Amino acid sequence: MALPGGGTEEPEPHRDSERPLQLCNPNIAAMKEDILYHFSLSTSSHDLPAMFGDVKFVCVGGSPSRMSAFIQYVAAELGLGRPGEEYPNICAGTDRYAMFKAGPVLSVSHGMGIPSIAIMLHELLKLLFHARCSGVTAIRIGTSGGIGLEPGSVVITRQAVDACFRPEFEQLVLGRRVVRSTELDARLVRELARCAAHLDEFPTVVGNTMCTLDFYEGQGRLDGALCSYTEQDKQEYLRAAHAAGVRNIEMESSVFAAMCSACGLPAAVVCVTLLDRLRGDQIGSPHDVLAEYQQRPQRLVGHFIKKSLAGAAAPASRSRCQ
Amino acid sequence: MALPGGGTEEPEPHRDSERPLQLCNPNIAAMKEDILYHFSLSTSSHDLPAMFGDVKFVCVGGSPSRMSAFIQYVAAELGLGRPGEEYPNICAGTDRYAMFKAGPVLSVSHGMGIPSIAIMLHELLKLLFHARCSGVTAIRIGTSGGIGLEPGSVVITRQAVDACFRPEFEQLVLGRRVVRSTELDARLVRELARCAAHLDEFPTVVGNTMCTLDFYEGQGRLDGALCSYTEQDKQEYLRAAHAAGVRNIEMESSVFAAMCSACGLPAAVVCVTLLDRLRGDQIGSPHDVLAEYQQRPQRLVGHFIKKSLAGAAAPASRSRCQ
Repeated sequence: MALPGGGTEEPEPHRDSERPLQLCNPNIAAMKEDILYHFSLSTSSHDLPAMFGDVKFVCVGGSPSRMSAFIQYVAAELGLGRPGEEYPNICAGTDRYAMFKAGPVLSVSHGMGIPSIAIMLHELLKLLFHARCSGVTAIRIGTSGGIGLEPGSVVITRQAVDACFRPEFEQLVLGRRVVRSTELDARLVRELARCAAHLDEFPTVVGNTMCTLDFYEGQGRLDGALCSYTEQDKQEYLRAAHAAGVRNIEMESSVFAAMCSACGLPAAVVCVTLLDRLRGDQIGSPHDVLAEYQQRPQRLVGHFIKKSLAGAAAPASRSRCQ
Repeated sequence: MALPGGGTEEPEPHRDSERPLQLCNPNIAAMKEDILYHFSLSTSSHDLPAMFGDVKFVCVGGSPSRMSAFIQYVAAELGLGRPGEEYPNICAGTDRYAMFKAGPVLSVSHGMGIPSIAIMLHELLKLLFHARCSGVTAIRIGTSGGIGLEPGSVVITRQAVDACFRPEFEQLVLGRRVVRSTELDARLVRELARCAAHLDEFPTVVGNTMCTLDFYEGQGRLDGALCSYTEQDKQEYLRAAHAAGVRNIEMESSVFAAMCSACGLPAAVVCVTLLDRLRGDQIGSPHDVLAEYQQRPQRLVGHFIKKSLAGAAAPASRSRCQ
């Protein structure tokens, strides 16, 4: 779906800003200490409510340096801190993930792929629970391959779907298959789409996002170390995905949607497309072009957060992006 | 299996040191340029044969800092470079992976989980192909949760198995299920076991390694953000795994075994156990204890490489660890 122009939309009902985070595990509240191993944080060595109790937006992305750049950008957008202020990595005790904070915004890296982001999300959700956070919104800002879009286009995910185009996340729990819904927050999608239309800086669409377990064979690339299909097979698969509403492909959205939804956290996925997969497999644009593309989800989400906070400060305004 | 004492084994037949690497993709040889995007390397901007043509051992592990420490350690073991010499990160143009080289040894980080290591392996196998490497051995050195072992024990993987204890790696290719064997090199297992017995520095066993897509629910932990089973369910699952020969659990071995096997690369997996999962879920040992545990696979594999190179220099000696 191409975005409509901004400014004439129905205002959204005001979000319940105190919606509490719910873990789906009664064991956690009973633990004497909880070691968040992959963050190098713990409930006994860190005062998590003091460190994180004011968090309202959690933004996650694959690359540590991109998430460091994002916190600098969003802090400047929100007028926080001094110009050029450095934000230290809160997880400096480990190199598994990096975490940065500026005011109500937390920025966390998650590496690549479903298992890597899932470890991070388990510990992030527990961190928010221990910190007694409420009214938190989670947004993944990432990169992806597009289908039938100009490179540099941004996709706001309507549904995260699997490699068979189903809005499901399947995992094995104690060796048994468990399927979870990958529902995302429809209101967030609309609000982000309005922000994109208002910004009007780059092409943005709302569409389905296919989440795969592999970057090469799993996404029909012809340039991996292993490949047993033809260009025609690939084109048929990608065109079938397009017909099912898929506009981009990445590797984390389904578990992100499933876990945030299970814990009552409104969640959105905003990814830029680095190439059009119908035209090729290699990411060959010059470095400066790719670097600018990667800033686009940051600019959209930074704008959304700024408008959201302005809306929260002035409750008469109910639409976040006008 | 507990290890026998060293010194009385049958010598191994000498490995074919010039076994060439085979990619399972005829497209690669025909490409004018191949951009190894997640390494920030390319066949047109880098002279890969000059940079990597002499590589004989590729060691991979999750953490960039651990793989940097490993290259320092193995360089000292092999008497390469000056004492305290720094080895630069060859992939400094990206923060997706880190890569270090000392003589014939390449050390590469792969992040956490099957998708993350799979991206790295596709590009690593193509790198070795473009560099015209031959006679390469691949070893994953990692961390894991043990089952029924003292924390700090090292497991040399006999078979990588899935969450249902099958020696299979399943993936979706163009939306269709493909199952690959997770066969590892039996001779490497024996040679590494002999080296461990010879070193005699820490408990080491040969056993099956379960490879899961999740660290919390996927491994039966009770301390994730989501958990819908009991301590008893968990114990039953882990005991069934133990009965199937599983001695440790990690998140990368199956695809590592499958991809190396498909490309004709002898491969082994050597992981230390950070805890005994029958006794708990949290990794709570002091930092210095965990740091020493994590050096154990490095010491074993460093010893193996040193002996292998000594054996190659003296072809009359056919058993690598004596």
